[in-house]
Amino acid sequence: MKRIGILTKPKFPDVAQTLHELCLWLRHRQKDVLLESSTAALIDECQPFDRPTIAREADMIIVLGGDGTMLGAARLVAARNPPILGVNMGGLGFLTEVTVDHLFDALERVFRDDFAIDERLMLSATMERAGEVVMQSTALNDVVISKGTLARMIETQVGISGQFVTNLRGDGLIVSTPTGSTGYALSAGGPIVSPAASAFMLAPICPHTLTHRPLIVPSTVSISISLSSKDAGAMVTLDGQEGMAMQKGDVVIVTASDHRTHLIRFPERTYYETLRLKLKWGDG
Amino acid sequence: MKRIGILTKPKFPDVAQTLHELCLWLRHRQKDVLLESSTAALIDECQPFDRPTIAREADMIIVLGGDGTMLGAARLVAARNPPILGVNMGGLGFLTEVTVDHLFDALERVFRDDFAIDERLMLSATMERAGEVVMQSTALNDVVISKGTLARMIETQVGISGQFVTNLRGDGLIVSTPTGSTGYALSAGGPIVSPAASAFMLAPICPHTLTHRPLIVPSTVSISISLSSKDAGAMVTLDGQEGMAMQKGDVVIVTASDHRTHLIRFPERTYYETLRLKLKWGDG
Amino acid sequence: MKRIGILTKPKFPDVAQTLHELCLWLRHRQKDVLLESSTAALIDECQPFDRPTIAREADMIIVLGGDGTMLGAARLVAARNPPILGVNMGGLGFLTEVTVDHLFDALERVFRDDFAIDERLMLSATMERAGEVVMQSTALNDVVISKGTLARMIETQVGISGQFVTNLRGDGLIVSTPTGSTGYALSAGGPIVSPAASAFMLAPICPHTLTHRPLIVPSTVSISISLSSKDAGAMVTLDGQEGMAMQKGDVVIVTASDHRTHLIRFPERTYYETLRLKLKWGDG
Amino acid sequence: MKRIGILTKPKFPDVAQTLHELCLWLRHRQKDVLLESSTAALIDECQPFDRPTIAREADMIIVLGGDGTMLGAARLVAARNPPILGVNMGGLGFLTEVTVDHLFDALERVFRDDFAIDERLMLSATMERAGEVVMQSTALNDVVISKGTLARMIETQVGISGQFVTNLRGDGLIVSTPTGSTGYALSAGGPIVSPAASAFMLAPICPHTLTHRPLIVPSTVSISISLSSKDAGAMVTLDGQEGMAMQKGDVVIVTASDHRTHLIRFPERTYYETLRLKLKWGDG
Repeated sequence: MKRIGILTKPKFPDVAQTLHELCLWLRHRQKDVLLESSTAALIDECQPFDRPTIAREADMIIVLGGDGTMLGAARLVAARNPPILGVNMGGLGFLTEVTVDHLFDALERVFRDDFAIDERLMLSATMERAGEVVMQSTALNDVVISKGTLARMIETQVGISGQFVTNLRGDGLIVSTPTGSTGYALSAGGPIVSPAASAFMLAPICPHTLTHRPLIVPSTVSISISLSSKDAGAMVTLDGQEGMAMQKGDVVIVTASDHRTHLIRFPERTYYETLRLKLKWGDG
Repeated sequence: MKRIGILTKPKFPDVAQTLHELCLWLRHRQKDVLLESSTAALIDECQPFDRPTIAREADMIIVLGGDGTMLGAARLVAARNPPILGVNMGGLGFLTEVTVDHLFDALERVFRDDFAIDERLMLSATMERAGEVVMQSTALNDVVISKGTLARMIETQVGISGQFVTNLRGDGLIVSTPTGSTGYALSAGGPIVSPAASAFMLAPICPHTLTHRPLIVPSTVSISISLSSKDAGAMVTLDGQEGMAMQKGDVVIVTASDHRTHLIRFPERTYYETLRLKLKWGDG
Repeated sequence: MKRIGILTKPKFPDVAQTLHELCLWLRHRQKDVLLESSTAALIDECQPFDRPTIAREADMIIVLGGDGTMLGAARLVAARNPPILGVNMGGLGFLTEVTVDHLFDALERVFRDDFAIDERLMLSATMERAGEVVMQSTALNDVVISKGTLARMIETQVGISGQFVTNLRGDGLIVSTPTGSTGYALSAGGPIVSPAASAFMLAPICPHTLTHRPLIVPSTVSISISLSSKDAGAMVTLDGQEGMAMQKGDVVIVTASDHRTHLIRFPERTYYETLRLKLKWGDG
Repeated sequence: MKRIGILTKPKFPDVAQTLHELCLWLRHRQKDVLLESSTAALIDECQPFDRPTIAREADMIIVLGGDGTMLGAARLVAARNPPILGVNMGGLGFLTEVTVDHLFDALERVFRDDFAIDERLMLSATMERAGEVVMQSTALNDVVISKGTLARMIETQVGISGQFVTNLRGDGLIVSTPTGSTGYALSAGGPIVSPAASAFMLAPICPHTLTHRPLIVPSTVSISISLSSKDAGAMVTLDGQEGMAMQKGDVVIVTASDHRTHLIRFPERTYYETLRLKLKWGDG
């Protein structure tokens, strides 16, 4: 691993100082550091790269940030899937593995090959309008179809691998990976899905029919969601970060992506320990 | 009851025919019929009135439509609260009392004073921006603060009668009357609140913190909700029908309205029977 | 307030020491101390009283314990309703007002009349079998009808003030006060009901029909629940502490009790603050 | 398929007549009919077999009954897993495939090999007490650990494949197959899990900690649940039909069974259609 991409956001407190030390540390070990321009500007004498270049060339990604930054990084590098080390700049995250205090310890372990890869399913979403593909993208957490702010309700028709499932009226629908199950889908009433399960979730958002419930399906299916109501502001959103307006008749097709996110893990902390900490299961 | 306002929407099937028969029937009994222009246009020789005039002058309102039409009628006439007879043009409603087949039977009973009044609590909502009142309105079902379509989350600060309750992050917050508890609030996970209870509900929409739950408070409280996050599309909406964009710092104050909706009821069917039918409790 | 009843359980750590100091403190102020025998045995030279005597004669009750001990105390003294000071021997409670560290400060305030009374609704439950009353009791939190361990399901018929509500199949049904809404009913999916609301909740436990939802009713109603299935182990339980086996055809009638629990409060902490702390709303 | 086992219950209306016609029909086609004694007694001249013999010898099973009868049949024949045709004697079931009106049409298709097999995951449950195996059994729907009727709460410690998951306090815990996800687990708030997913669900029943949520895990894991509280009536139950009392310290180990249930299906009706019908998704 020679070329190390670093992704972060200027908004995090003390990020410039951390970045400065990190670049020194990496260069001292003969690594090439790839920073994007907004980040490179935070420190001296650093050549910026554009994001596609980082995605194409980095052998490993270090994310300084929170789960949101991780999601953006995962989508950016999906095509090649280098290992990603998530370094939390704030509280505990589901995706970030270490705190900034343990950054250099963690990197030592990474460069002596003492780590595990946690492979995470990703979603591929395609939107078709009148037979044309108008959007194609990838998500690590979820693909969300949601109503416009002024609308009272959205109506979609949901199919799975060619079979009609239901007409769904409500605020919308979340298609989530196991990774996304602890995100928006959890707020919408969905279960926690272990990342070890090869499954996706369809979770209705505030469904009009009370018997509509989250549905778990194998990750091999193809999920189609077509917008049957006319709603001026309806959107499809990926990981809550990228979005596109939908029109009546538009169909969003969601399948497993060919790509998977590769998270760097140190086996001391289990998935369940993260759940206990984040969801405060231990606190009586 | 001399002056009878009729509120409906041209979209309902066969509404012109029903309206024609209804006007004849009422005029035959020396009633004055008040129709708004979009409706008056459906039948011959009928003078249109504007909605404020109907609100000000009608001794009784007949609504031909569904629960949505009823909500609009209730807000329109809130200041004077004449009795409203809801005539369902489609399936069973929570607010409409009779089907169109029983329209004339129902009117016979109304005009011989053989009916009950079901008084429903309404909400008064005021929005303040930098100390100025920028919106003041009334709702029969609910006042909803919700995020814009592109936002991942909205953050509000909630207070009750001067006491801080919580900071709430999520899709938004519903303040609902008992009447509204079988509407959007039910889809958001709220309980059913009997119209006989003098209580309001605060129901979070997809809350980020899983322990945020619907909260029932006496109808005597004052609820304040201020928008603490910056969200370009955040809205306050009344009964899902009227809305206004919110800005960071805006405060929505919700209290019981001085006005109540007066629904005409025939005592044969109880509230619980309507619940059983609408929610299909009987069907095993 | 001359005669002070103290209720606690020997199981709490350090309770003997606390009790010893408390009795000295009270006697020093010329108060009579009423202890029950299991508690009196923990300290020297203390005359025991039976629980009915304490209930009948105490001018004020001090509870050393948790919310469970408070519930038992509230039912014990319901008929006369002296003020109760809840002193928490463990973590924060909904009903206990102070920790043991603040016991004597709190008592100083009580005896100089610097406190508020928080009146809480109680439930009265009566069970009838073949026209005979076979049980009559009072609850501060809830009256629960539940299936036997071996049964797959229980079926009850629910009525409110003489009107049929529904047949309910599932694990059972909770009738809860506002106070009980943060107890078992919350685990069963019910909302939080402010103690200021004059309302009760009917919350189904794991209902077979998914559209059965918690129902909020005014505290003036009479709720009847009759057991229509034959279930060898079905029980009615009060506050999770007293119970009686039910037989097919038994009817439990629940109404507001004539009695209310009088909790001693110091106005510094609001109800919402307790909610935030117990439900960890602040912790991001 | 020469030897046809028939399983039913005498309680179903008209079962004797159906059974009589079915036996005639099968014998006419040179099939051997295996009935158990309670069922054989319903018709003339029929030799009874005990249930283990039917389990061991039948090439195919016909169940006349409902989903409960299907569950019992599936556990009975788990070791050899002959195809099972479910014939519904009442309303629509999730497991029964045809109504009694279509019984002979269905059998014609079965005997000319015009059907599909729907393989369903089963659970294997073992209970250990002080190192000894005290129970070993199989379930098609679920393995449930639940509190005794008099207890307020049960506490269990949950582990997955050797990793500690959580201490869980509440009414209990359901471990469910995809098949069981539309049963008790759905009433407890779980999602629907497609039978095509190789996954199990752990669903807490009325958990004390509100952030405990249903958890989906791959069907390859081993789930251990040990009883940490002392609860006189705690039980482990399989498919709601077989049970055994638990003691403090007992450990229940749940894994995928080596056996699978083989349901006879005719491909006209999809799984989603059954969901729509049973959960009334279509009805507005």
